Amino acid sequence: MLHACLVLWATPVSAQPSANVQSANVQSPEIGVDRRVTFRLNAPKAQEVALTGEFLKSKTPLVKDANGVWTVTVGPIEPEIYHYNFTVDGVRIVDPANPNLKTGSTASTLASVLEVRGDAPSFYDGQNVPHGEIRTHWYHSKSLNSMRRLTVYTPPRYDRELKTRYPVVYLFHGANADETAWYRLGRVNFILDNLLAAGKIKPFIVVMPFGYGVVPGEPQSENTAKFGKDLVEDVIPYIEANYRAFTDRDRRAIAGLSMGGGQALTIGLNNLDLFSHIAGFSSGLGNAANFPKMYANLVGQPETSNRKIRMLWVGCGTDDGAFAASKAFSEFLAKHNIKHTFRESGGAHTWTVWRRYIYEISPLLFQGKGYGSYVSRKDPGTG
Amino acid sequence: MLHACLVLWATPVSAQPSANVQSANVQSPEIGVDRRVTFRLNAPKAQEVALTGEFLKSKTPLVKDANGVWTVTVGPIEPEIYHYNFTVDGVRIVDPANPNLKTGSTASTLASVLEVRGDAPSFYDGQNVPHGEIRTHWYHSKSLNSMRRLTVYTPPRYDRELKTRYPVVYLFHGANADETAWYRLGRVNFILDNLLAAGKIKPFIVVMPFGYGVVPGEPQSENTAKFGKDLVEDVIPYIEANYRAFTDRDRRAIAGLSMGGGQALTIGLNNLDLFSHIAGFSSGLGNAANFPKMYANLVGQPETSNRKIRMLWVGCGTDDGAFAASKAFSEFLAKHNIKHTFRESGGAHTWTVWRRYIYEISPLLFQGKGYGSYVSRKDPGTG
Repeated sequence: MLHACLVLWATPVSAQPSANVQSANVQSPEIGVDRRVTFRLNAPKAQEVALTGEFLKSKTPLVKDANGVWTVTVGPIEPEIYHYNFTVDGVRIVDPANPNLKTGSTASTLASVLEVRGDAPSFYDGQNVPHGEIRTHWYHSKSLNSMRRLTVYTPPRYDRELKTRYPVVYLFHGANADETAWYRLGRVNFILDNLLAAGKIKPFIVVMPFGYGVVPGEPQSENTAKFGKDLVEDVIPYIEANYRAFTDRDRRAIAGLSMGGGQALTIGLNNLDLFSHIAGFSSGLGNAANFPKMYANLVGQPETSNRKIRMLWVGCGTDDGAFAASKAFSEFLAKHNIKHTFRESGGAHTWTVWRRYIYEISPLLFQGKGYGSYVSRKDPGTG
Repeated sequence: MLHACLVLWATPVSAQPSANVQSANVQSPEIGVDRRVTFRLNAPKAQEVALTGEFLKSKTPLVKDANGVWTVTVGPIEPEIYHYNFTVDGVRIVDPANPNLKTGSTASTLASVLEVRGDAPSFYDGQNVPHGEIRTHWYHSKSLNSMRRLTVYTPPRYDRELKTRYPVVYLFHGANADETAWYRLGRVNFILDNLLAAGKIKPFIVVMPFGYGVVPGEPQSENTAKFGKDLVEDVIPYIEANYRAFTDRDRRAIAGLSMGGGQALTIGLNNLDLFSHIAGFSSGLGNAANFPKMYANLVGQPETSNRKIRMLWVGCGTDDGAFAASKAFSEFLAKHNIKHTFRESGGAHTWTVWRRYIYEISPLLFQGKGYGSYVSRKDPGTG
């Protein structure tokens, strides 16, 4: 049997196991060599235990044995990184035996992580290639009058090649997530390390800010404006003062997923003096009736806009609730003769899709080939 | 009412709340202005719900209301950062409504985090002072033949003062934790930022490796040796190749907590050619009968050892199960005339103690005043 939490560094033996930890009595998840996966929960007093997960079509019951351990085996499951939860007598919980968690800025998306490995390393796996770093910064936002956190990916050798400057991608997370999501769940660092090692991209810096500019009590409708103000007035100047970043629009990109996809498109397309490469993944775009007003400058002078935009990429999976909005946005752009790629893929509103999208668009960035030649395929590919 | 998850950056409004998330229905924990804290769990079908936490003497039951929401209010609770869990029909879980989690390398210590604020910022709070960074590296360990992760704290302005070199502290986590523990739970970055802003320390780099060198199936008894080999043969050379670190023993320190305290004392005191400042917090020291053999070189030539050691600091709380071992180790050192500080404090085997210890020893590092003048107090202090 393979070990469940296939972490990339050594999995520890418990040196000083706490007493009274029931969960330590079971192994969950346990991944078989056939990629069938067994989930277990030690819950003798529970009346009903079920499993939900991105690898399941519907909620699946666990069955209790004589020792009070609930079990279910599912699969085989395709190699991928998935999220799942147990429901115990109606309470949705994370798997108490699995240390690998999906966390965020709210508790609504707390989940356990199941990583199923294939025979060969995946494009998102950490491999024996030169690795970039993730840097965590705490900065004071003058525009929001608060301390905020952001994470930055620097490519391999950034600290050695002190005369090199780099393009920058500003990359945004989705709702209820935080500034760690793109590397902890999205594996953007490994994806870029692998693309670099394969010679498929040139190195760039990735800046991942925290996507909420509003605080509780403030309307969510103001979020993009407040977040955008922090981005333009605080984050970009901070990055350009602290990193060897190019400071021209041609080498500045903006991208995001879900809520962050909406932010990237709104902020990017309304600030073409700052950004030349713009991408939205499964974007939260709002009501299509507002597009003409929201993007008035963009569509009011399509020739100028097309000259400035070096890449405009709008992707969504057909199983995603956000698909119709992305399609409507693409049609809006087409109606106004704004050149762009509409990427219709398979997949739903999950990291499975977004990991592949960042893998797909990275070779297009800062190359001047951001649209036109791109062929849409049904399934997000990594080949 | 104050908000429960008093994060230091903007707490988001949920933009796209997931459907079918029961936990979103309740607020937990909710911290009152009187610092009484209410915990809630939406669990209509549960038969028994209880709360355990570092702020409680014993397991405390929650009471179900007519809507199936279980509640308990406790306190007032002293300002501090605590860990807690619910037990639902015998299953220990994290609070499904609280996004702030204590995670680790095993699931045995999964817990929710309660942060109670005082009227003034604490020594461990992020304040409006210059901030250092946390850098996450992935490196290939030749000695362990695996990819491993480590985190590094660089002080404010590290990237600006390109001609400055810095002393280095190698700082280790405890059992079941990982290389993120010292900044996520220990707040070492904010503690050092605040000490620097107050002029109480000179800047140094902190290196936090992953403390397990053994993998499942290998005996835990070999862990310190394997971890130490990785430290000496891989981590230290990696750091000194990638950071502007001093490379002499006088400006290299080694410290840790619990399992990591044992590692710091064992590796440090057996490698006095590499380390001059050595500290163990609530250390996992093993059987005192083995001390003469484990520390034969140290005590075999006490004058040489005392000349090399610029600080040797052994601290433990009197409510800690590890207290007797630390006391025995101090007596062993005293018997062999090895100069050291034995720091007997209040407190148990918790981060409350360890945050204060790193605050206490940091001003002693690289100052040549690591013992002798130090007065032991009962309570870990931050004044």
